[in-house]
Amino acid sequence: MKDINKTLIPGFDDMLAAHERIAPHIHRTPVLTSSYLNDLTGAELFFKCENFQKAGAFKVRGATNAVFGLPEGMLEKGVCTHSSGNHALSLSYAAGRRGIPCNVVMPRTAPQAKKDAVRGYGGTITECEPSTSSREAVFAEVQAKTEGDFVHPYNDPRVIAGQGTCSRELMEQTDGLDMVVAPIGGGGMISGTCLTLSTLAPEVQVIAAEPEQADDAYRSFKAGHIIADDAPETVADGLKVPLKELTWHFVSTHVTDILTASEEEIVDAMKLTWTRMKIVMEASCAVPLATILKNKDRFAGKRVGVIITGGNVDLDKLPWMAG
Amino acid sequence: MKDINKTLIPGFDDMLAAHERIAPHIHRTPVLTSSYLNDLTGAELFFKCENFQKAGAFKVRGATNAVFGLPEGMLEKGVCTHSSGNHALSLSYAAGRRGIPCNVVMPRTAPQAKKDAVRGYGGTITECEPSTSSREAVFAEVQAKTEGDFVHPYNDPRVIAGQGTCSRELMEQTDGLDMVVAPIGGGGMISGTCLTLSTLAPEVQVIAAEPEQADDAYRSFKAGHIIADDAPETVADGLKVPLKELTWHFVSTHVTDILTASEEEIVDAMKLTWTRMKIVMEASCAVPLATILKNKDRFAGKRVGVIITGGNVDLDKLPWMAG
Repeated sequence: MKDINKTLIPGFDDMLAAHERIAPHIHRTPVLTSSYLNDLTGAELFFKCENFQKAGAFKVRGATNAVFGLPEGMLEKGVCTHSSGNHALSLSYAAGRRGIPCNVVMPRTAPQAKKDAVRGYGGTITECEPSTSSREAVFAEVQAKTEGDFVHPYNDPRVIAGQGTCSRELMEQTDGLDMVVAPIGGGGMISGTCLTLSTLAPEVQVIAAEPEQADDAYRSFKAGHIIADDAPETVADGLKVPLKELTWHFVSTHVTDILTASEEEIVDAMKLTWTRMKIVMEASCAVPLATILKNKDRFAGKRVGVIITGGNVDLDKLPWMAG
Repeated sequence: MKDINKTLIPGFDDMLAAHERIAPHIHRTPVLTSSYLNDLTGAELFFKCENFQKAGAFKVRGATNAVFGLPEGMLEKGVCTHSSGNHALSLSYAAGRRGIPCNVVMPRTAPQAKKDAVRGYGGTITECEPSTSSREAVFAEVQAKTEGDFVHPYNDPRVIAGQGTCSRELMEQTDGLDMVVAPIGGGGMISGTCLTLSTLAPEVQVIAAEPEQADDAYRSFKAGHIIADDAPETVADGLKVPLKELTWHFVSTHVTDILTASEEEIVDAMKLTWTRMKIVMEASCAVPLATILKNKDRFAGKRVGVIITGGNVDLDKLPWMAG
């Protein structure tokens, strides 16, 4: 790791070490294809199904890397974090596997299924309002009280190194790719993807996909500095958080482009994927396909990896349901 | 094949020939596991995911075997059938791949997604009322008019031989099983499973799972002869049809037992599978898990194959939605 602005930037070796550390605790998730979606887009799509991952999301990679890398002396007080959902339950899962405490701050509006899963893994939830400011304030209290090690959902080198293991597997499971498209919220998955591909396959373009209604990463990318919104509203509830310095480093130096999609385009792509691929996935995971359908010329004839980031959906509140 | 009551009973060699014939046109579907469901049931479950199959269901195996086994002289008039849905679209898929006509009679209450898929593959639909009597009457007219070769959804040796390829793959993909549980409607999948396992692995028990509200196979099994209901009502819409002489042959000679589940148990098992395994599957496919959860003692400690038969769901009408 190299030091920048007092934060350690993880390197390729950190990703390799993470992969070895987390392998006993995660799935090597399958890569699925769909001839229907290939015909529809004109591209050859390879879906890396992290919705089938332990704890239902890629975030278990980074969380498990952080938890299993903790030295003995820090185990008693455990870990703590704030998260819109999947990092919370991933950290709870990893902490449960290692038998240490896990305290998480979650917005009260987070899907019930995610809250249930956190508690099922043994995590303790403190609720906050659904804004970045409330989340950070409530978290400061929890952290002061529990003294657990803070594992940030994405602005943490251990987490980014862990997320980078996903695109390493994707490259091993496919016979070469032209591009990888992944959703961007705080930028943890995209940063891990950049970390891995910039060494392993620097010719592969990294495209980030973002909801129009939470397009702070897109605007940051165009402006050349971080722009953060406090409480954006989007059906892609995993993508509401802003970039931070570590993820901004990877986004600003390695990402090829950021594309956006409307709420309707995201829901349509989500329902289309459920219908044709028969997989349960979150709205956030549909943003890449929505941007591919919207920018067909750019992807036509290309071999495109698409990261399906998670499958923790509240089945009683699907976005195409009335009310 | 051997002759019984003028109907040919398919044998193990027919299944092997079917597998070779259909292999270019179908997926070798994955087998998924869930540590959560293993913990919950006390059994070791292996889910054969035919919801990821071409046309979204195992029925494409039998339909493709029939269509690609047709001699040249019968191609012009094509094929015809009646079906509650998945056989209709499987036959349409297979006919489309071979470039021949396909006429199907479907109940007007069949899920819209299935009707759309039939038309998408190039099939022609004639609607009937949702009862066996109406279905058979309307079909007689369609068959007389089109003169297509009738591919029955299950009472056809070509179809049963095709369905048998599924459990052959399941056995290859697992390291030995104690039991296989599959849903039973007309009995095509169960018959194919019996056909294959009685030769390949005769020690494996074959358990059929059926909705209480459409338990004609259960009552037939207990009575020792076919009992048929005209229009049973169940959320498991693929399982409403009665046994026929060919499937009754396999059910009466090879099936170990038939277990039933209530509507509520089926919907609960369906939602549980979607939530934990992140797969989209039909209510019919949840009947096996519902019966396993209800009869835990019987399955505890066993290695159990479970056939997830299809994933063609109307996402606007999920059974846990209000209204």
